[in-house]
Amino acid sequence: MAEIPYKIFLEENELPKTWHNVRAVMKDLPEPFRNPATGKPCTADDLRPVFCDDLIEQELNTTDEYIEIPEEIRAFYKMYRPSPLVRAYNLEKALDTPAKIYYKFEGNNTSGSHKLNSAAAQVYYAKKQGLTHLTTETGAGQWGTALAMACAFYGIDLKVYMVKVSAEQKPHRKAVIRTYGGEVIPSPSDTTEAGRRILAENPGTGGSLGCAISEAMETALKTENCRYVLGSVLNHVLLHQTVIGEETYTACEKYGIEPDIIIGCAGGGSNLGGLISPFMADYIRGKRKIDFVAVEPASCPSLTRGRYAFDFGDTGKTTPLMKMYTLGNGFMPSPNHAGGLRYHGMSPILSKLYHDGYMRAVSYEQTKVFEAAVTFAKTEGTLPAPESSHAIKAAVDEAMRCKETGEAKTILFGLTGTGYFDMTSYQSYLDGTMTDYIPTDEDLEKGFATLPKQDF
Amino acid sequence: MAEIPYKIFLEENELPKTWHNVRAVMKDLPEPFRNPATGKPCTADDLRPVFCDDLIEQELNTTDEYIEIPEEIRAFYKMYRPSPLVRAYNLEKALDTPAKIYYKFEGNNTSGSHKLNSAAAQVYYAKKQGLTHLTTETGAGQWGTALAMACAFYGIDLKVYMVKVSAEQKPHRKAVIRTYGGEVIPSPSDTTEAGRRILAENPGTGGSLGCAISEAMETALKTENCRYVLGSVLNHVLLHQTVIGEETYTACEKYGIEPDIIIGCAGGGSNLGGLISPFMADYIRGKRKIDFVAVEPASCPSLTRGRYAFDFGDTGKTTPLMKMYTLGNGFMPSPNHAGGLRYHGMSPILSKLYHDGYMRAVSYEQTKVFEAAVTFAKTEGTLPAPESSHAIKAAVDEAMRCKETGEAKTILFGLTGTGYFDMTSYQSYLDGTMTDYIPTDEDLEKGFATLPKQDF
Repeated sequence: MAEIPYKIFLEENELPKTWHNVRAVMKDLPEPFRNPATGKPCTADDLRPVFCDDLIEQELNTTDEYIEIPEEIRAFYKMYRPSPLVRAYNLEKALDTPAKIYYKFEGNNTSGSHKLNSAAAQVYYAKKQGLTHLTTETGAGQWGTALAMACAFYGIDLKVYMVKVSAEQKPHRKAVIRTYGGEVIPSPSDTTEAGRRILAENPGTGGSLGCAISEAMETALKTENCRYVLGSVLNHVLLHQTVIGEETYTACEKYGIEPDIIIGCAGGGSNLGGLISPFMADYIRGKRKIDFVAVEPASCPSLTRGRYAFDFGDTGKTTPLMKMYTLGNGFMPSPNHAGGLRYHGMSPILSKLYHDGYMRAVSYEQTKVFEAAVTFAKTEGTLPAPESSHAIKAAVDEAMRCKETGEAKTILFGLTGTGYFDMTSYQSYLDGTMTDYIPTDEDLEKGFATLPKQDF
Repeated sequence: MAEIPYKIFLEENELPKTWHNVRAVMKDLPEPFRNPATGKPCTADDLRPVFCDDLIEQELNTTDEYIEIPEEIRAFYKMYRPSPLVRAYNLEKALDTPAKIYYKFEGNNTSGSHKLNSAAAQVYYAKKQGLTHLTTETGAGQWGTALAMACAFYGIDLKVYMVKVSAEQKPHRKAVIRTYGGEVIPSPSDTTEAGRRILAENPGTGGSLGCAISEAMETALKTENCRYVLGSVLNHVLLHQTVIGEETYTACEKYGIEPDIIIGCAGGGSNLGGLISPFMADYIRGKRKIDFVAVEPASCPSLTRGRYAFDFGDTGKTTPLMKMYTLGNGFMPSPNHAGGLRYHGMSPILSKLYHDGYMRAVSYEQTKVFEAAVTFAKTEGTLPAPESSHAIKAAVDEAMRCKETGEAKTILFGLTGTGYFDMTSYQSYLDGTMTDYIPTDEDLEKGFATLPKQDF
């Protein structure tokens, strides 16, 4: 077996040729989406006005374990993939732990995160179907940036509804999206009925992700040759992100790395789901034992404190109903919460795996997360995104437990991205002005009250 | 010969074991530095109060072609090196050129640029000498960030004098430096005599690089166990940057790539010098013919319109005198000029090579540079730094010439970094508010008037 370098880069010809569809292996499938109007399971036709045909097929496919990555998408991936699997030698040394720590780093591209993996695929399929326009929403801006990059590459016109308060706080994110030719519309806007309604009701609002989704979906429906694309939660997005897990799996095989623990931050769940997918298949098949850990912010604890129920994907209640761990579509995380991971729900696939006991979840307050982020930056060099730093915190805690017990466990986590556009949050941490927020049971009850009736 | 992938990553064991000292190969050496007080060539003792001993040895070494990279520095390099040599397949396709375009990408680390290569070395030598404190200046912030990263790694205390107007315009750069534990002092400050003098004379000043250098040097001299470190221009900095050229040379040999043209942006010259060093040695030895091109901004044209003369490295006239192409230490580029490359002088080694006809230089106005940057971002994905984009513009022009002549030249350029912290400049380009500036002959004369007497 080859000696393990700091950074394991697979060869270009080792770039995965297929995505991994874990549903084909699951003993019990997630519940199908339901049409909120009829309460019946969604058909492809229900989804067709909003999503591309190929993506609908992937969304509903529960039988094929491997789904081919088209050559054109692989050509895009080759610009920034395979991504490195890094041995955190310096972090191990700083922690003085017997544990071996690895991280799969997805931040080496201009979108700054793993989001590009699904953007590349979604825009390719839109192009293939002859579409000329796409719409989406973005909060922190990583997804909007990724999609703009892919749209520039394939020559597709893009409108990004960006949560107004983010567009104002992150003018640089907006400039990156514009550099790639994307049009950024602060949401709520007067370009849609949904936007105008919200503005009329609440003229000073800073907007929300749910509102931006409603605007993007409305525009997609009203524009010719246009569809709406989403950056997380959905099954096809998680599928595209399995390129992360497939590469990691190959690298582990090549270098004889056997992870005891695999950790990922979880907002909508696409990164974590993508990372663990092939490993989870082994686990379900009884081929090996791995401790899978989802890490979420204490301020938006959908797995650790949410309910497993059917819910809408957006605040505007326009999406199909999905069975998932959710805080209720009306739940709003505290504005003091930094970065992403502020979604009320969780990938239906991950929710099902969690519900059936195949993985566990932990949550952390943000000051602890930033503490781990700074330690990581100082030892490993890379400045991590706040989202990714949740996984770092959990990995550090596991490594410290190994120090106590003397176990030399192999810990692997997903480092989804870089924090270059999150320096305002770092600044507040460094200045000691960052505060934590844990919703009270009453706060959660208010969110749960927005869940639809579960009477199918 | 292996097929050429999009990204050539050398193996970790191919990471260079030596830096390349091109002075050992040059037929005519650059003039030695001179002590401004005596007019005599500088000795090691002249430099010792300001610089580390090992660095002084490297600075003055004109005889050893290969200088060993200590194992400890290689361990640091392994965190982010070898850096990829990328075949710009997508840019070639967009330009429809028969040329083959390659770029060596140095932006995949949190400093966002090649600056980390010298920071890692300089801080290591400081630590080795038992120093506990370092000072430096930073303008755009890449160097300050790189140095903070290295200081965090080696446990050295760092004070960064950051040009006040930059510190105000780029609070996020400041936050990155602070994350790595560096102290950022907007310059001019009241912490030094130089700063207090400048503030008294000009209370509202936004500062300058020359002033920040003076403050950093003064603090280094007055602090125990402290030295000053510089991020470009000097011979030892250029030496450390040859890790770029050595990797590129190895990759070219491995894949049978024979560059006809090598292009780099040139501010102080360390990136370009580092990239071309081993190739230049071949050229000087008559082993092969390469067209070496330095690219500078039209607004700060030290090679294309400067004078080859002895000059100070800083506006405060505190450094030794260096024979170089210079616009005069008092030259100030227009404030409308984006990004770095605003230094009045140029590496003495590169100046000599240019003067002796071993390389040529071109200059571009910034709107043309940003046009090339946006084309590059849209086709190759990566958002380039404004500095690096000067090289992109020259490479695109060469590729378009190949399209006219039908020649399939191999063009290789240095992509020194990413532009994530330069979005204000991108924004002004996208908004159409960016303007160009070319100094008049009168503007240049004012700068030349600040040159010291050349009476040695």
